[in-house]
Amino acid sequence: MEKKSEEKQSAVLVRDDESIDALLKGKLRIIQKKRGYRFSLDAVLLAHFAVIRPGETVYDLGTGSGVIPIILSARSRPGKVVGLEVQEDMADMAERSVRLNGLEKLIEIVLCDVNEAAEFFQQGACDVVVCNPPYRRLHSGRMNPDTEKAVARHEIKGGIEEFIRAASYLLKPGGRCYVIYKARRLAKLFSSLNEQGIEPKRMRMIHSKPGSEGEFVLLEGTKKGGEELRVMAPLNIYEPHGGYSAEMQAIFEDINYPPL
Amino acid sequence: MEKKSEEKQSAVLVRDDESIDALLKGKLRIIQKKRGYRFSLDAVLLAHFAVIRPGETVYDLGTGSGVIPIILSARSRPGKVVGLEVQEDMADMAERSVRLNGLEKLIEIVLCDVNEAAEFFQQGACDVVVCNPPYRRLHSGRMNPDTEKAVARHEIKGGIEEFIRAASYLLKPGGRCYVIYKARRLAKLFSSLNEQGIEPKRMRMIHSKPGSEGEFVLLEGTKKGGEELRVMAPLNIYEPHGGYSAEMQAIFEDINYPPL
Repeated sequence: MEKKSEEKQSAVLVRDDESIDALLKGKLRIIQKKRGYRFSLDAVLLAHFAVIRPGETVYDLGTGSGVIPIILSARSRPGKVVGLEVQEDMADMAERSVRLNGLEKLIEIVLCDVNEAAEFFQQGACDVVVCNPPYRRLHSGRMNPDTEKAVARHEIKGGIEEFIRAASYLLKPGGRCYVIYKARRLAKLFSSLNEQGIEPKRMRMIHSKPGSEGEFVLLEGTKKGGEELRVMAPLNIYEPHGGYSAEMQAIFEDINYPPL
Repeated sequence: MEKKSEEKQSAVLVRDDESIDALLKGKLRIIQKKRGYRFSLDAVLLAHFAVIRPGETVYDLGTGSGVIPIILSARSRPGKVVGLEVQEDMADMAERSVRLNGLEKLIEIVLCDVNEAAEFFQQGACDVVVCNPPYRRLHSGRMNPDTEKAVARHEIKGGIEEFIRAASYLLKPGGRCYVIYKARRLAKLFSSLNEQGIEPKRMRMIHSKPGSEGEFVLLEGTKKGGEELRVMAPLNIYEPHGGYSAEMQAIFEDINYPPL
């Protein structure tokens, strides 16, 4: 009986062009497009970098498939997680992943542009914002012909400035913001945080391997925080001669997902 | 005859409370106080990070003992190096080190507060600025009772904002600024550069050893440069189990100075 109900649920929830992937030792599942935008390493790194205290309210700006709220709900004990997503198809898919996991009471997916956050939510509504904003400037590099991928990667619906402005609006004073961004655009990230009164407190650089240049940066900021930044030891994704580093392997093992 | 002249020169130039230290395989010498502010690792790291093209005009803000102009003059072929120093005793000592090395035509020491740069020099006077500004906030930590050390370390005569403002004034468009600063104050460094129109282009984090937090940051910025930051692999000063790292040993060997 229970099995049948699960099958029926899956049949309703999952479309032909979508797959269900297991996460977190099979405890949780996520719906993704077979072809199209799938969550990637940056989302996993961000979900592992963010520190969520029990009961905290967390907003994920540009939640995509909802992978970050789903990982956070399993790795910590937030009181509430809200995922904002501007693309209707993605928001619908994230919403179905939430239901697939029976997390409707904990995670809410809202179809909303980060620029409209003030119309949907109260100022200071949350303790924590996580965001993995698009990091490619418009018209830089080739635009992806797949619109979903393009919006997720390029600054079509808002770039770092708009995401950080929304983060600052949503955070209560003392609230924390966790961002992953391209290392090459670190100066832009810092100036956006500075403009919005979010003080960088903890930073970690992500390098492909020891000796290579920084590719991504993980940053924790505090709204109206005092000046004092901890620069953590860098995270190397690969070993010098190939293969994931021990730390990266531990992260994949933790979420029980095939290496990306 | 030549030897006697050298001895006489030394007798004139060096005071009882000062020592002469050899630098750069003995090619150059520097006068320092036996007790008091002596140049340290950050000056050496900065002199090695800066890239000076032949013929370029270089200004060193807060030159102290003049160690950076002296190292730069040996490691590259600048057209002119100007060292600004606000403390009269230090400026005098730096000036004597310049004469001791016969570098008067190349290096000029100017007794000058960075806040007065506009009264002493033309806007856009140089291609490159190097600076190792004081990085401790006033009244943070214990103030050094030795005034020379206190001015060099604390923001008594100007902090990062004043140094970067002077750098921006002195640099021609496209000119480069090299700074070493405390990693914990990276956000302040970025906001100062942003305010003054200097775009960060290359950054290197200095860690005590692999796995430890960042202590210093080396930064290259370009006046009116476009957005694109290269984050270099970090520099570790020590090996995991003690002793200088191979890279740090090579730097000391290059300037032929006992490890600091």
